[in-house]
Formats: sequence, structure tokens, C-alpha cells
Amino acid sequence: MSGLPEPVLIVGTGLIGTSLALSLRRRGVVVWLGDRDPDAVAVAVARGAGEPLPGDAGDGTGAREPRLVVVAVPPAVTAAVVADALRRFPGAVVTDVASVKVPIHRALVAAGVDASRYVGGHPMAGREVSGPAAARADLIDDRPWVIASHPGASEAAVDAVQELALAARALPIVMPAAEHDRAVAVVSHTPQILSSLLAARLLESSDAVVSIAGQGLRDMTRIAASDADLWVEILSANATPVAAVLGALRADLDSLLHALGTIDQGGQDVLAEALRRGNAGRDRVPGKHGARQSPTAVVPVAVPDQPGELGRLFAAVADAGYSVEDVRIEHVLGRPTGVVEITVGEVSAVPLSEALGAQGWDVRA
Amino acid sequence: MSGLPEPVLIVGTGLIGTSLALSLRRRGVVVWLGDRDPDAVAVAVARGAGEPLPGDAGDGTGAREPRLVVVAVPPAVTAAVVADALRRFPGAVVTDVASVKVPIHRALVAAGVDASRYVGGHPMAGREVSGPAAARADLIDDRPWVIASHPGASEAAVDAVQELALAARALPIVMPAAEHDRAVAVVSHTPQILSSLLAARLLESSDAVVSIAGQGLRDMTRIAASDADLWVEILSANATPVAAVLGALRADLDSLLHALGTIDQGGQDVLAEALRRGNAGRDRVPGKHGARQSPTAVVPVAVPDQPGELGRLFAAVADAGYSVEDVRIEHVLGRPTGVVEITVGEVSAVPLSEALGAQGWDVRA
Repeated sequence: MSGLPEPVLIVGTGLIGTSLALSLRRRGVVVWLGDRDPDAVAVAVARGAGEPLPGDAGDGTGAREPRLVVVAVPPAVTAAVVADALRRFPGAVVTDVASVKVPIHRALVAAGVDASRYVGGHPMAGREVSGPAAARADLIDDRPWVIASHPGASEAAVDAVQELALAARALPIVMPAAEHDRAVAVVSHTPQILSSLLAARLLESSDAVVSIAGQGLRDMTRIAASDADLWVEILSANATPVAAVLGALRADLDSLLHALGTIDQGGQDVLAEALRRGNAGRDRVPGKHGARQSPTAVVPVAVPDQPGELGRLFAAVADAGYSVEDVRIEHVLGRPTGVVEITVGEVSAVPLSEALGAQGWDVRA
Repeated sequence: MSGLPEPVLIVGTGLIGTSLALSLRRRGVVVWLGDRDPDAVAVAVARGAGEPLPGDAGDGTGAREPRLVVVAVPPAVTAAVVADALRRFPGAVVTDVASVKVPIHRALVAAGVDASRYVGGHPMAGREVSGPAAARADLIDDRPWVIASHPGASEAAVDAVQELALAARALPIVMPAAEHDRAVAVVSHTPQILSSLLAARLLESSDAVVSIAGQGLRDMTRIAASDADLWVEILSANATPVAAVLGALRADLDSLLHALGTIDQGGQDVLAEALRRGNAGRDRVPGKHGARQSPTAVVPVAVPDQPGELGRLFAAVADAGYSVEDVRIEHVLGRPTGVVEITVGEVSAVPLSEALGAQGWDVRA
């Protein structure tokens, strides 16, 4: 990597820090590692993630100076560790990987730190496990990595963090820190809240009511299973942007509630407009491989619930020469059978259905 | 079927009516067919769905009398057709398949019709296409079929509709009509509205913002793509129960909005409680085959985007002896690669990961 400043010091050898280190090591980047917990550094070193920060006497003195520092510690302590790194390494660019960006920059400014060498980042990757042992070199591959710019940042610092993302095989997307925080409020934090609120409605429903639930409810409540403590931290750090999105959504909801009470006095038009806006918004959601959605169609196939049937089915799809865009298994109630919904390009749906039908598959299209 | 009253007259040979007829014909049930559109009847007859109502002079006179009438016409005209059938066939039980039940019963009562021989129903099945040509004998197989009881219904009428659902291989669930309408308000209509409202928020977002969206947003906005006109009809028919659920949800939303504005003054506790209620609600969502969810775990496998790889993967899973509970393809941005998330029973996750890893699969667990 021509432009990546080396050595790179990674502070915090947890899941993200160690995964990033392993990723950079694939490219031969010189990586130094630091963590409050020496055992975590030892695990990361043993996994080939790099070497301990050279010359570090353990008391913050004597260390050699990296050219780029990546702070990958828990959100609540990120700002303090970034400030410390800026002071300790006066020639280095410093970045971090926390999932909310504005509060960190604000804390640096409040602490009187010169933040020109700091540019925050947010690799959009994660796992449900943590720690260096769970790290993987490819965790960040192909993921968006938001580079959260701010007006006081030097061009060199922005460039360095972009080079870091590219060296980790991620896709750098530069946007102002405030835009990042508003973006995750829309695409991540608000969906989490709506899923939780919807799922909570089921607590007041009888068994009979929930027994008739279908795939729509399942999809809409999947992320309601997320870790509550983690989400309290995330939502607390991004409270203002999340409240702005939720406030706008509440205004729409109020309008719909009014419409439901005045169905025959114009309410239907309000409903129709809201549903059409939903159609248009859904069209904006990125599809496979980050491209705008291309037209797809679903080929539903009833598959016996026996080992091997899914394998046979996908082998048949591949043999017929079609590329699968997505798969879901539509569960049915009470009997051991299921419908597999194979999403393919729109033009492929009819010929694929015919090809599978000719081979005896129970295509329900 | 010992208890199913025959012949069964199906009024309305669209998708549901013709599918039901085909399903009953599998069992040898005598099925008569009627529709305002003689061409629709002809198509259904040609598909083997039954025979035209015998002796019908076309002016409502001369027809032989069925013992059970299923009204499968559009919601807006269902009550009128049900009332007509009750008058024409004074010995028959009459049911319908509309997706909202209370307004139909209310219209019958308002019209002064004796509704003791009427019991509404709602087979929870459908397709995105319509008409008798799209009908399938197995459309209703294994689906819940709500039998919407009301205080004036005769026991014989309730029994007859239950026998109908069983004869169609569906799973009859008897509940009061009002409970049905409240149930679909929770498990179907409110999810639709939330999905549409969330997707509409994206209309005010930049391309950069939507470009960082992940699987959570995709899941939460999938049903926002639903047909707007159809949903205006459904929501209009069930406006009061839907408004009740949305009103309760808005109260929870208001509480969260207040919490986000008072994070350090107890707001975090409110957030935590809401997220935990979401966890508990999600636990109530029926899983595979209608059973309560048993513990599952996800085995993520990175699969090259090449024809045949999915087939190879599922063949390997089957060969290793594991049963797949669910599958999703986690899309990544910008590069032709994807992670397939295989959901298996919790105890199977580690051994399956090891088995796949030993065969060279790129397991990310």
C-alpha cells in the first residue's frame, strides 16, 4: 500500500482491533499492538496479528512512535484513549472504530486536544462474539468503512484513514461525522427501536394470536432479539439523531392514526400516500453487492424437510445455470414441510421455474 | 371426510376460491362453482376445480341447493354475497374467506339477515398473483385457517367450517371474529405500517446514507414493497383494531423519545426496559413448523458468488447429517462475495462448523 503510514499501532486487541490487525498483516503492513490487558495482546500476537508496541516500558514511556494509531476500545473510553494517543505520539494520525462519531470528537474539543490529526472511522462489521480469539482477517472485507470527517481534520489524516480502510479491503465512504451519526440513526438505530417496539406488542397477545403470525412478523422482529445492554449504550451515544428520526416517524404515525379514524373522510388517501412512500423508500435500499436493486423475482419451491433436499435443490439451480440472489425458507405451521423462496433476476424466474418443474421439483409459481 | 357437508358451492372462482376447490377435489368432495364472470367459472372447471352450479338459470332461480357455501369474492362485496347466499339457500351453512371479519358480520346484522348459519373464515394464505389460472391445490396446505365465531352462530355452522378447513389440509383455529381482527392488526397490519413508515424515512436520506444499510434495514423494509392499493383496502376494513395497536405503540414510542432526551436522568433505564420487552416479545414469535422457537445458532459461511457453490454447501451440510432450520444470504457491499448464514439447532452449530471447516469451507464462526 503506497499511502498507508506505517507502522500502525492498534490500541485494543479485541474483536475488531485484532481482526483489523490480521487483515493488515495479510498485506505485510507493520502492526504494533497494545491493550490494557497484556493477555489480550499475547493472544493477538500468538494469532499473528503483529508485535507488542516496541520499547514500551509499560508506564507510557520509551515506546517507539507509530505513524498511524487505531483506537479499538469500548465506546465509553474511546475519547480518552484517542486523546492520550494524540499526546503520546505527536507525529501520528489517530483514528478509532466506535459506532457513533460526534460525541468522541466533541469530547476531544472539550478536553482542549488539537484534533487535526484525528479522524474517526466506523467499519460496518461485527460479530456476536468478542475478544481476540474470535477475530478473523476477513471480518471487514468488502464492508463499508465510514471515514467521519470534521472541519479541523488535516487532509493527511483523512487520507491516512482512507488508506487504512483500503488496506483492510473495506470500502471507504467519507462523510461528516454528524452525517454518519444521522445515517446510522436511520439505517440501524431506528430499525432496532421499531423492531423492539413491535415485538413488545406481542407480550399482550394470546397464544392464539401469535400462532397465526407469518413471515412478515418474523422478519420485522428478528433484530428485536439483539443484546439489550449493548443497544442501550449505542442509543445513548446517538440519542439526538435517533430522536430526530423517531420524531419524524412519529409525526407520520400520528397522521396515519388520524387517517384510520377518518377512513371515509379522506383517510384512505393518507393511507395510500403513506404506503406509496414506503414503496418508494424500499426501492432505495441497496440490494446484493451494494448495487441499486435490480429487478428480481421469487421462485417458491416446496421442499421436503429431509436432509439433503436443500443441497439437491441448489445443485439443480446451479446446473440449470442460474445465479441465486437470495434465499429464504418460508415456514409453515404444524407440518414437516417448507417452501424455499429462491430469489433470482426477474428474467430468470420463469425459465428457472420451468427447469425445476421439469425435474420434478414442486414449484409453486 | 365424515363431517363435511356436501355439495360445497364456491362463489368466486378467483385465486383463493379456485385453489380451495382444487384442494377439495383432491379428496373427492363434490364442488360446485359460481362467479359473476362465466369465463372465470369456465377456467376453474377446465382446471378440474368442480362443475358449475347445477340447474342455475342464471337469474338466481332453479339452482340445486348446496349444503355449504364458501364466498370468496373481493372484501368490499363479501357481505352482500354472503347475505344473498343465506337467502337463496335456506338449508346451507355459509362462510367466507375475507381477511377482516367483524365488518362482514356487522353488515349482515345491519341488513336484518339471520346470521346463525354464517361463520366467517380466513385461510392465512395468498399469492402475489390472482385469478383461477394462478390457483394451486396446495395453496392452503398447512396454513392456519381462522374460524371467526360469533355468539349467534350455530354449532353446526362452526363445525362445518372446521371440517372445510380440515378437508383443505389447513389448520383450523377457532376464535371470535373480533379477536381475529385484533390478531391480524398485531401480527400483520401493524408490521406493514411500521415497515412502510421506516422505508419512507429513506426518502429524505442521501445516497451515501442508504449505501451503508445492512441486513437489519433490508429485513425491516421488505414488506414495504407490498401493493399499496390492496393494503388501503385491508387497513380501511380493520381501521379500529389497527389504530388500537398503533396507539399503544405510539405511547411506547413517546416514552422512548422522552428517554432519549433524558439519557442521564433515568432515560437509560427506560431504553433498557423497552429493549428487554422487545427480546421477550420476539421469543413469542412462532418458529419453524409453528412450534415455539427452540434454541438455534447461526453458522456463517463465506461462499464464492459462483453457480453451484450454494448447492455444494447444502450438500455438505446434509452429508454431515445436519438439518437446516433457516438460511439467509448476508449481502456485502461492492464485491462479488457473500456470507451464507445457516441456522441450525444450537447444539449442532459447533460440530457443523468444524465439519464444514475440515472440508475447506470458509466458516466465519
